[in-house]
Amino acid sequence: MTRDEVIRRIRSGEMTGTTSGLCPEYVQANLVIVPAEYAPDVRGLCMRNPVPCPLVEELPAGTAEPRCAPGSDLRTDLPGYRLWKNGELAERRHDIRDLWRDDLVSFLIGCSFTFERALVDAGYPLRHQQLGTTVPMYRTNVPLAPAGRLHGRMVVSMRVFRAQDVEGVRDVTRGYVEGHGEPVHWGDPAKIGIADVAKPDEGDPLPIEPGEVPVFWGCGVTPQLVTVESRLPFVITHEPGSMFITALHHGDSALTHAHA
Amino acid sequence: MTRDEVIRRIRSGEMTGTTSGLCPEYVQANLVIVPAEYAPDVRGLCMRNPVPCPLVEELPAGTAEPRCAPGSDLRTDLPGYRLWKNGELAERRHDIRDLWRDDLVSFLIGCSFTFERALVDAGYPLRHQQLGTTVPMYRTNVPLAPAGRLHGRMVVSMRVFRAQDVEGVRDVTRGYVEGHGEPVHWGDPAKIGIADVAKPDEGDPLPIEPGEVPVFWGCGVTPQLVTVESRLPFVITHEPGSMFITALHHGDSALTHAHA
Repeated sequence: MTRDEVIRRIRSGEMTGTTSGLCPEYVQANLVIVPAEYAPDVRGLCMRNPVPCPLVEELPAGTAEPRCAPGSDLRTDLPGYRLWKNGELAERRHDIRDLWRDDLVSFLIGCSFTFERALVDAGYPLRHQQLGTTVPMYRTNVPLAPAGRLHGRMVVSMRVFRAQDVEGVRDVTRGYVEGHGEPVHWGDPAKIGIADVAKPDEGDPLPIEPGEVPVFWGCGVTPQLVTVESRLPFVITHEPGSMFITALHHGDSALTHAHA
Repeated sequence: MTRDEVIRRIRSGEMTGTTSGLCPEYVQANLVIVPAEYAPDVRGLCMRNPVPCPLVEELPAGTAEPRCAPGSDLRTDLPGYRLWKNGELAERRHDIRDLWRDDLVSFLIGCSFTFERALVDAGYPLRHQQLGTTVPMYRTNVPLAPAGRLHGRMVVSMRVFRAQDVEGVRDVTRGYVEGHGEPVHWGDPAKIGIADVAKPDEGDPLPIEPGEVPVFWGCGVTPQLVTVESRLPFVITHEPGSMFITALHHGDSALTHAHA
């Protein structure tokens, strides 16, 4: 299916759920929308914490059509949205057009789905894709560098690999700076404050077989935990796992520029 | 004293010890020198951990004269050096010319001394300057995002301020992205794994008076802990507190470019 076709189906509500594996040639992105007065804080949070929050694009206030995907509308083109008020999940949506305001600033933050095709191509299969589930995500105890009114802890996504494949997996993902780059941790989940890998905070559990190692990447769901820990008055985010599919390819100069 | 005069005195061995408060109009920098094969890992460490490791300049292999300070020599112009072998401190030096090799790559990493003048000017005095001591530095339990063969935990510097001044102090330092920016933590040191603030790992202890709060910034000594935790075979660093004084001013376009 082409990107245009996927976006059309997402927009119409025909297609919901995780975008993992869809349009694998395109960069995928997390979404965070805040009132303009919080935009410098979100920008600072991304600059200071580029591993969980690699900034792909910041849109001007009131704009919903990103430069990284002309013709798209961030208010309709993601499979799901969450509205947060004062750090509480207030509502889940498939469309946020009626919540739109001229003072809202959208941030697109890179996603590890962007490197998944490269892992599969390199001979490292992804169990969540094989099972048709959403990649598991966990809140860690790793503190972010605070930025203005924003603070919190890192969220990570988990994939499992054979112990002998971990270095190869690190090598494949290292260059994807717009998609969290190489892992932040591998091995004992307790070392980053994950009590039970069988109980992810978002997404679905993933069985770990003998001889396999859990590998953790920074995750663009991190700003959702920041909205909770910082008790932001009004934030819209995507539904974890249900990303915005940009029209950028890995290595595009727009991305290089964002990370120069 | 002019910068030229300070550099001349440091080079001659006449001036040693901390550079805090010297030439306050210039950006100061930490130094890390590694064999070329490790340079991509150090670069990655800086890119992934810009708060403790804000990259001011990476020099070409074999070069000791930085673009940020024409005429300077990184092998003689810092008050003190440390040679690390396989994660152990092997030697302390005032001059590293005889250790020089064509494959050595130098990295200059920003320093919080750069914003100290701004704090004093804004009415927030610095006790370590009043006492004539070196700012205290601590190893934390905050993990860095690993990069290739490099991993470790963040080192922080500490300053103390009245509780009502903490937000003002954060505001003053936020824009100094080349100097670690705003603090990473304030309040209870145990929350970032510091057991006893009276026993810094580097620098001198600082008394905390009633009504004062310890405030912690990311610190460019972090790569020294990385050399230990990653057991790098050969690394030269500066002596903590004894920095390289660049010829850059805060806000110079060279710095803006490095962090664009």
